[in-house]
Amino acid sequence: MAPEAEGWSGTAHLEAEARSHLRKDVFDWIAGGAGDELTLRANLQAWEALRLRPHVLRDVTSIDTSCTFLGSPSAFPIAVAPTSRHDLCHPGGEAVTGAGAAAAGALFVISTGSERRLADIAAAAAGALRWLQVYVARDRGWTRDQVREAAEVGCSALVLTVDVPVVGRRHATGAGFIETGRVQIELDPSIGFDTIGWLRDVSGLPVVVKGVLRGDDAKSCVGAGAAGVIVSNHGGRQLDGAVATAEALREVVGAVGSEAEVFVDGGIRRGTDVLKAMALGARAVFVGRPVLWGLTVAGVRGVEAVLRGLAGELELAMRLTGCSRLDEVGLDLLAGS
Amino acid sequence: MAPEAEGWSGTAHLEAEARSHLRKDVFDWIAGGAGDELTLRANLQAWEALRLRPHVLRDVTSIDTSCTFLGSPSAFPIAVAPTSRHDLCHPGGEAVTGAGAAAAGALFVISTGSERRLADIAAAAAGALRWLQVYVARDRGWTRDQVREAAEVGCSALVLTVDVPVVGRRHATGAGFIETGRVQIELDPSIGFDTIGWLRDVSGLPVVVKGVLRGDDAKSCVGAGAAGVIVSNHGGRQLDGAVATAEALREVVGAVGSEAEVFVDGGIRRGTDVLKAMALGARAVFVGRPVLWGLTVAGVRGVEAVLRGLAGELELAMRLTGCSRLDEVGLDLLAGS
Amino acid sequence: MAPEAEGWSGTAHLEAEARSHLRKDVFDWIAGGAGDELTLRANLQAWEALRLRPHVLRDVTSIDTSCTFLGSPSAFPIAVAPTSRHDLCHPGGEAVTGAGAAAAGALFVISTGSERRLADIAAAAAGALRWLQVYVARDRGWTRDQVREAAEVGCSALVLTVDVPVVGRRHATGAGFIETGRVQIELDPSIGFDTIGWLRDVSGLPVVVKGVLRGDDAKSCVGAGAAGVIVSNHGGRQLDGAVATAEALREVVGAVGSEAEVFVDGGIRRGTDVLKAMALGARAVFVGRPVLWGLTVAGVRGVEAVLRGLAGELELAMRLTGCSRLDEVGLDLLAGS
Amino acid sequence: MAPEAEGWSGTAHLEAEARSHLRKDVFDWIAGGAGDELTLRANLQAWEALRLRPHVLRDVTSIDTSCTFLGSPSAFPIAVAPTSRHDLCHPGGEAVTGAGAAAAGALFVISTGSERRLADIAAAAAGALRWLQVYVARDRGWTRDQVREAAEVGCSALVLTVDVPVVGRRHATGAGFIETGRVQIELDPSIGFDTIGWLRDVSGLPVVVKGVLRGDDAKSCVGAGAAGVIVSNHGGRQLDGAVATAEALREVVGAVGSEAEVFVDGGIRRGTDVLKAMALGARAVFVGRPVLWGLTVAGVRGVEAVLRGLAGELELAMRLTGCSRLDEVGLDLLAGS
Repeated sequence: MAPEAEGWSGTAHLEAEARSHLRKDVFDWIAGGAGDELTLRANLQAWEALRLRPHVLRDVTSIDTSCTFLGSPSAFPIAVAPTSRHDLCHPGGEAVTGAGAAAAGALFVISTGSERRLADIAAAAAGALRWLQVYVARDRGWTRDQVREAAEVGCSALVLTVDVPVVGRRHATGAGFIETGRVQIELDPSIGFDTIGWLRDVSGLPVVVKGVLRGDDAKSCVGAGAAGVIVSNHGGRQLDGAVATAEALREVVGAVGSEAEVFVDGGIRRGTDVLKAMALGARAVFVGRPVLWGLTVAGVRGVEAVLRGLAGELELAMRLTGCSRLDEVGLDLLAGS
Repeated sequence: MAPEAEGWSGTAHLEAEARSHLRKDVFDWIAGGAGDELTLRANLQAWEALRLRPHVLRDVTSIDTSCTFLGSPSAFPIAVAPTSRHDLCHPGGEAVTGAGAAAAGALFVISTGSERRLADIAAAAAGALRWLQVYVARDRGWTRDQVREAAEVGCSALVLTVDVPVVGRRHATGAGFIETGRVQIELDPSIGFDTIGWLRDVSGLPVVVKGVLRGDDAKSCVGAGAAGVIVSNHGGRQLDGAVATAEALREVVGAVGSEAEVFVDGGIRRGTDVLKAMALGARAVFVGRPVLWGLTVAGVRGVEAVLRGLAGELELAMRLTGCSRLDEVGLDLLAGS
Repeated sequence: MAPEAEGWSGTAHLEAEARSHLRKDVFDWIAGGAGDELTLRANLQAWEALRLRPHVLRDVTSIDTSCTFLGSPSAFPIAVAPTSRHDLCHPGGEAVTGAGAAAAGALFVISTGSERRLADIAAAAAGALRWLQVYVARDRGWTRDQVREAAEVGCSALVLTVDVPVVGRRHATGAGFIETGRVQIELDPSIGFDTIGWLRDVSGLPVVVKGVLRGDDAKSCVGAGAAGVIVSNHGGRQLDGAVATAEALREVVGAVGSEAEVFVDGGIRRGTDVLKAMALGARAVFVGRPVLWGLTVAGVRGVEAVLRGLAGELELAMRLTGCSRLDEVGLDLLAGS
Repeated sequence: MAPEAEGWSGTAHLEAEARSHLRKDVFDWIAGGAGDELTLRANLQAWEALRLRPHVLRDVTSIDTSCTFLGSPSAFPIAVAPTSRHDLCHPGGEAVTGAGAAAAGALFVISTGSERRLADIAAAAAGALRWLQVYVARDRGWTRDQVREAAEVGCSALVLTVDVPVVGRRHATGAGFIETGRVQIELDPSIGFDTIGWLRDVSGLPVVVKGVLRGDDAKSCVGAGAAGVIVSNHGGRQLDGAVATAEALREVVGAVGSEAEVFVDGGIRRGTDVLKAMALGARAVFVGRPVLWGLTVAGVRGVEAVLRGLAGELELAMRLTGCSRLDEVGLDLLAGS
């Protein structure tokens, strides 16, 4: 399957093709979720269950999907979620993903669990926004060095993952350790909200907290200095039975939407899903698995095509709902809201 | 399958037979919807989910299904929705459909996307009501000529399709163009509510706006001079994830039902679906795909049989709910309403 | 399958066995419903969806399932619904069903659509309560003669079926006629609530109206002299899309439960279904298809076993919910009520 | 399948393996439920339907799952529900189960329906808490002797099963009798709430009432001297159509949670199910079928692994929801509560 110039439409076929390229255990590891995969399925179903109320007879000659991530402009509100071990999908690993994101002009969140050196990945993604996802290790010095390196290589924000106080499912060598490929990190299970300020201070970078599913926690994050939160359940890979992100998003937006940037990930597979997330108040969405399927199937061009495809679908969905700009996308686009 | 004198009952078997007559890509093109076909399925399920509360022991000796479309009488509130490229179903194309509609006495909405000359189609459908469905082209002169021709060949109203600011799925040569078979139209994505008055003025015909799913938009249409609206999501072929028409109908009726005529299409497959639509306040329904299956299977007689079959089912449903006339069909026929 | 002394448990296996005994068209005719069988399925699902809140630690040494039908005692609140053409299930037809009902001590409602002479059927069912189901023919004299004969042969009430102003599905020779096997009746589609009083007066028998699904209609029936109503949608065989009887029952009980006897049929397959109906306020239930499966499989003993089986299941359900008598069965047995 | 040191994760695979070890009728007898198994399925689905709202950034360095059962400490709030005829799963029967429970440090409720002598079972389970499940026989002397023996052999409480006023499905020789393997007990269907005080007085042991699904009944139990109640529908084996235990739990907790200990069983298959039960106010859960699968597959080690597996999953679920101790687990962990 060759990526088309304007990007791929939909991602279901892409998953099927990626499956045929990957070893079964690798595919299952990427595609699967924790436990009985209740949350994995709930994420998808929650977006599907939302129904759109399109406007008609509005001038949609030009559609502007542009937005900002913590002030930095992006052509569209779709970014690459941090996921680890891209080398399992493509020999070039994260550097290839980063190049694809840069080609599409999309923000790339580099995972701590990358095989390659941060500087190399950041360089490959130069030309696009780069953030670094971090865990906080027991060895704070290690984390401090890491986030300072992030700032040096051009990362403009940190994404602190907080839904992995212990390591869930398979992507680790054992409880409490993250295997990055280059280094094994012992996570610190005692971290609290004050870690947010510490990270910001030692790095000089704004901090976005990833894994928030409640309004009260979101308030605590923002109160502790977070510039934003990502409503996430780790793609259904940590706590099976956690609420779907589409369900949690509205509560979090209600709690902190006026003070901080609220993002969401989990189950976004269509441009209409992106539009629904925006209607619920998200500033942008992050996409994980589909990017890996694109990486698997066609490397740099595959990653680019997935991102451009979603962006194109979003633009079409905006046109079909009579929205020229993202600030026209609101709750009244959703039935029953 | 030979059409019976009194029309066909149900349409599921007909779809199956039409499938066996058509090339797979043609069948799929007609039967399918946009994206993941969420809205295509939702349309069907929303009618099914409504439950009827029949009256008993009312005199149902004679049942009158007659109604009017913008003042013109019709024997039943079931009309042929505009669909394009009938030549793919039958070599005679739209002229055959028109003859079938006329034989059944049903309003026929001729699609802009017809293969044949408008005058020929209108002539074939003479004896029944004919409306012309229009898109507004960038070249307003082209549209003006078209609607004036419509008036000349006996079309008594225009149906302005507004849910295709861009062309969705496959039935076009590219974004922004409609391939009619005879001519390629470049759509004008900048049209607004004022287009309604313009169309009415240049054609001298009343304008019905098709593709409205919200009460506020319906109000704007009527305020701008529309004589009616058709609650429609383009049969699930444009914005996947749009609300089902049975869900949107009630809101639109509440907004403009007292000032304008509200129609509905999308997923109507049974006489009881027609009755449910009337109970929600629709003045009549439009039927698309089933007419094409009738056309495919048995030409003029097939189209007639589909329409007469639905009308017969509606009459039976009225008898079984104790309603002698359509003005007795109200919300209290629906459970939970 | 030999009927056990204490009756059969459940009816699903019985349906499967009856299917193997019957010609496919006969089985389908009995088992099927109108249209897309939405109401047929809804009847079953509505009982299943109700959840019981059993009482514990109540003395259930002896359970009394006895009740009255219009003042006449019955050992249990389960009766044989009127269904036609029993000769298709068993050569002995309705006489065999009647003997089975009598053996079980159950009320037997004889259908107008019986193959055999009313006197013969009534005689076969002697020893148990017998009611006659009637349609009102255009020829009122015919109906008058029929109901007078009913009184003479020992029928103690009439069941006026009102959900067949026209004949639905297949069990008729054409619209508006009922084929009884012995005579073809032309139904009177103009009958109204006054028919109830007329029937009562010419027969000297109380009248129960079958096919009521609304509170307002039930009030009109009782106001016009009905002694009771049966909440019924004709087993899903007439108006497809009609509300499930379990859903309509509560409204009807609320409207007339204090003045008249309210019964229900449709989808009753388990003793727990009977208990749920009683909890919603029904005085008793009527069972149609399962009786025909029993008739098919084992004749008199089969009919008896179906009825005794359901009665036994009801007794068990009462014991397991801590109810010794039917007047202890109330709404608080149902979750969310 | 060899039990892992830390216990098994999930129980679905275990059921599949146990199925391959057991005679079909034995497996079906254990796995199945009453009637159409509506309640059996509802139990599972009700836990699944609950969605968790995890907290983040809380110190989860150490997780304490410890609790008390009627004042006696346990390392985790997961106990072995009383089930009968363990000899069908393992030749060592209840003694093996008891040894497994003791190895895991879990409370073991010994069933009256055990094949082996109570003293032997209690001895095998020495080192862990043991309770005895009892039915009340018509012969009160027999029951009195039994509960006094229970006290003598170290059982610290009685579990009075009250949802079997008559014996349901298959696990008995006939209505009203329990076949224990050693003795056939004729149940007393006339027992009432006063039985609770009688049992407590003759045994000198606290009484927990098992099979309560309503708040009013729970109040009566506690008023009559019960130290606790187990919200249970007998694993869907008695009254088919009874509410799911997850649904009934909240009502019962609301009624007596402040005065007595409320436990729950039925459909608990995951550590997240345990957490959800605690969030709804249960003090602990009881597990039946999974213990039997463990017993079948690996004897003592299998029972231990099932219990340790669930406890490990609970600990993980607590860590992932930011709860260090069970008293931090409350209703606000559940979406929509």
